[in-house]
Amino acid sequence: MSGSPDTHHVVIVGAGFGGLEVARRLASAPVCITIIDQFNHHVFQPLLYQVATASLAPSEIAWPVRHLLRTRKNITTLLGVVAGVDSARHHVLLEDGGTIAYDTLVLATGARHAYFGHAEWESCAPGLKTLEDATDIRGRILRAFELAERETDPDRRAALLTFAIVGGGPTGVELAGTIAELAHETLRADFRHIDTHKARIVLIEAGPRILPSFREDLSSYAHAALERLGVEIELGRAVSECTNDGVVFGERTLAAKLILWAAGVRASPAADWLGAPADRANRIKVQPDLTVAGHPEIFAIGDTVTLDAWDGKPLPGIAPAAKQQGRHVAATIELRLRGDTSPRPFRYKHAGSLATIGKRSAIIDFGWIRLRGRIAWWIWGLSHIYFLIGVRNRLTVALNWLWIYATGNRSARLIMQAGQRPKP
Amino acid sequence: MSGSPDTHHVVIVGAGFGGLEVARRLASAPVCITIIDQFNHHVFQPLLYQVATASLAPSEIAWPVRHLLRTRKNITTLLGVVAGVDSARHHVLLEDGGTIAYDTLVLATGARHAYFGHAEWESCAPGLKTLEDATDIRGRILRAFELAERETDPDRRAALLTFAIVGGGPTGVELAGTIAELAHETLRADFRHIDTHKARIVLIEAGPRILPSFREDLSSYAHAALERLGVEIELGRAVSECTNDGVVFGERTLAAKLILWAAGVRASPAADWLGAPADRANRIKVQPDLTVAGHPEIFAIGDTVTLDAWDGKPLPGIAPAAKQQGRHVAATIELRLRGDTSPRPFRYKHAGSLATIGKRSAIIDFGWIRLRGRIAWWIWGLSHIYFLIGVRNRLTVALNWLWIYATGNRSARLIMQAGQRPKP
Repeated sequence: MSGSPDTHHVVIVGAGFGGLEVARRLASAPVCITIIDQFNHHVFQPLLYQVATASLAPSEIAWPVRHLLRTRKNITTLLGVVAGVDSARHHVLLEDGGTIAYDTLVLATGARHAYFGHAEWESCAPGLKTLEDATDIRGRILRAFELAERETDPDRRAALLTFAIVGGGPTGVELAGTIAELAHETLRADFRHIDTHKARIVLIEAGPRILPSFREDLSSYAHAALERLGVEIELGRAVSECTNDGVVFGERTLAAKLILWAAGVRASPAADWLGAPADRANRIKVQPDLTVAGHPEIFAIGDTVTLDAWDGKPLPGIAPAAKQQGRHVAATIELRLRGDTSPRPFRYKHAGSLATIGKRSAIIDFGWIRLRGRIAWWIWGLSHIYFLIGVRNRLTVALNWLWIYATGNRSARLIMQAGQRPKP
Repeated sequence: MSGSPDTHHVVIVGAGFGGLEVARRLASAPVCITIIDQFNHHVFQPLLYQVATASLAPSEIAWPVRHLLRTRKNITTLLGVVAGVDSARHHVLLEDGGTIAYDTLVLATGARHAYFGHAEWESCAPGLKTLEDATDIRGRILRAFELAERETDPDRRAALLTFAIVGGGPTGVELAGTIAELAHETLRADFRHIDTHKARIVLIEAGPRILPSFREDLSSYAHAALERLGVEIELGRAVSECTNDGVVFGERTLAAKLILWAAGVRASPAADWLGAPADRANRIKVQPDLTVAGHPEIFAIGDTVTLDAWDGKPLPGIAPAAKQQGRHVAATIELRLRGDTSPRPFRYKHAGSLATIGKRSAIIDFGWIRLRGRIAWWIWGLSHIYFLIGVRNRLTVALNWLWIYATGNRSARLIMQAGQRPKP
């Protein structure tokens, strides 16, 4: 599986923003490339929350990896689960027992949400990292309204109509705002026994304000905009318990049948595969040139690494950071093949921070200018459509957004469960 | 849950074409209506095969039932699984222990695929009736190519690239034609180790010709059109065995890792709920007015019944037949409420038969005119877009089809599995 014997073989694990960027930038280099992912698709993660809230269909924000790379004849795409790395023999080990030899290895294996040592919370407080997560959360949100419609006990009904979102970063804010719109606008006329306007959406943030990575004025603006959408915001108390009945934070207990987790991430096990130094979230502490200490032939990038390469601050876990790292690694590999092995420290250039609050408001901090409100939303929307892959997806996403904007209706309101089959 | 005490309460079980039509036609009648379905969505079943073959997204052919009925204030939609009927007390029994009283009951509970007494074949030869089935089959088809790309043994690779479709009716023909296009056109450039053009698509029909419900000349045309797409057609031998390794029909054994079942259906258990007379496929033998014998207040319609109401022939299992029955039942209920209880035998009017072969050919028999080829495909396509619900869905389906037509690319090539989570 490793191309002709003399060609330098680059193996990339993970087809997220980082891994895909490495593959694309190396397309004309004298290398053969194998890119391995456990899913057959690349996901545009910044819009995952819109799948989870029934605004977009999964296939509108995801593309088969091998289709994206079909014209690059030096690239082989493999669907497979990596179980480890034999760094002494330069082999990637697959879960099914297969091995793939590499000359250069790029680990771009991302992160999952994490529960601060409370893994048992995952079943009652799902997080949002994959398309499967998103369709699962979509089903849970919609099912809560269905169950409430049939519930006669007022307390149980109220708990079904209470949505707790843990974590006041961009994902938590985007989920809270969109669920509020779903409940208060989209679903309003559809039920007979419940008033979806009474649904409570509670955003819980342990810190003193939401969107802490933004300037304080933008953060307060978002706070007020969320409250206008009907979101209740609870600050300054960390969650100490999640159960199927609700969430405990500080001395408060909130009865909520659905809790969504947007509070923390943990890197992939890439650090464990290599025995590499890692931080508390298991992110590999890479060298300034994005290689793994002691393994100049192994690069690690994206959410699975940590590096103080943003003017001395740690890299943010966002798509542009992963892409810049991917570009840097591809350039380093090309230079090395030409004999230039001088160290090339990576420096991150921050283009800006964006977060949306529902379908009419957003905040943007470009550094040199800060925007908020409706115009920020349009810039956010257009830039995301621009970064989507393919004309067809841009058209359908734009069409869906215009539809939601004009009518309030959301098109992907499906509760689906694999394995659920009607009784024969 | 049964409206005000004096209002006549109609309970409809099943929100397919038949059940939905009853609800819609009764929207202005002096009744209150409860419609119950085990899914939250109505599915446009005629295009289900396009979801299974990655051409359309699930949400493009499905709509939340309660959203479709949101403006009909006399209708309550419930998500629930019906477990039985207490016909003596006029109660529908739900799986979760709930009961719903009815004055008139309409059973429109459809059918599932059936294995002629070989239920054990279901796991290796899935059928296509729900969105879950469709996304499951989509994943299996795409995964077969992924596994073949990594397989080095030529026999195992050939078996992975052999798709057996059992049943030469419209569903089998549509699946075979579209899988052939997927393999030979859409996926052609995407793989490095396999030639997807070598994938074998084998359509197995026990009878002497495919599409037996069509006239012989149209059936031969479809046969030739399928062969031009590269489908192998095996006639005259019934399947006697399905396993994970292949399918046996007559004295032939075909090594095929994926078998799709389009060979037979079995009605819902509605007949069992009532102890009603049924045929071998468990379809209720309804009275000429679509009531259940001995229960004038219980109607049954659609794929869960059988009745010789098509010029003396049995009703066909297609959407227009279910809709006409729904319309008839709604009219009967309205007349009864006005005091007219005279029996109203149902008569089916057949508008025409349609089947597509891939994306460029179809056959249509309107009775007075028969069409085939490209023009038939366009009539088929436009009529299906017309029958889709909602402007947005018509736009996106039309856009997708034009896209597939022009580029050969299919947009919904996702392998998704609920419950699949990356390793932490």
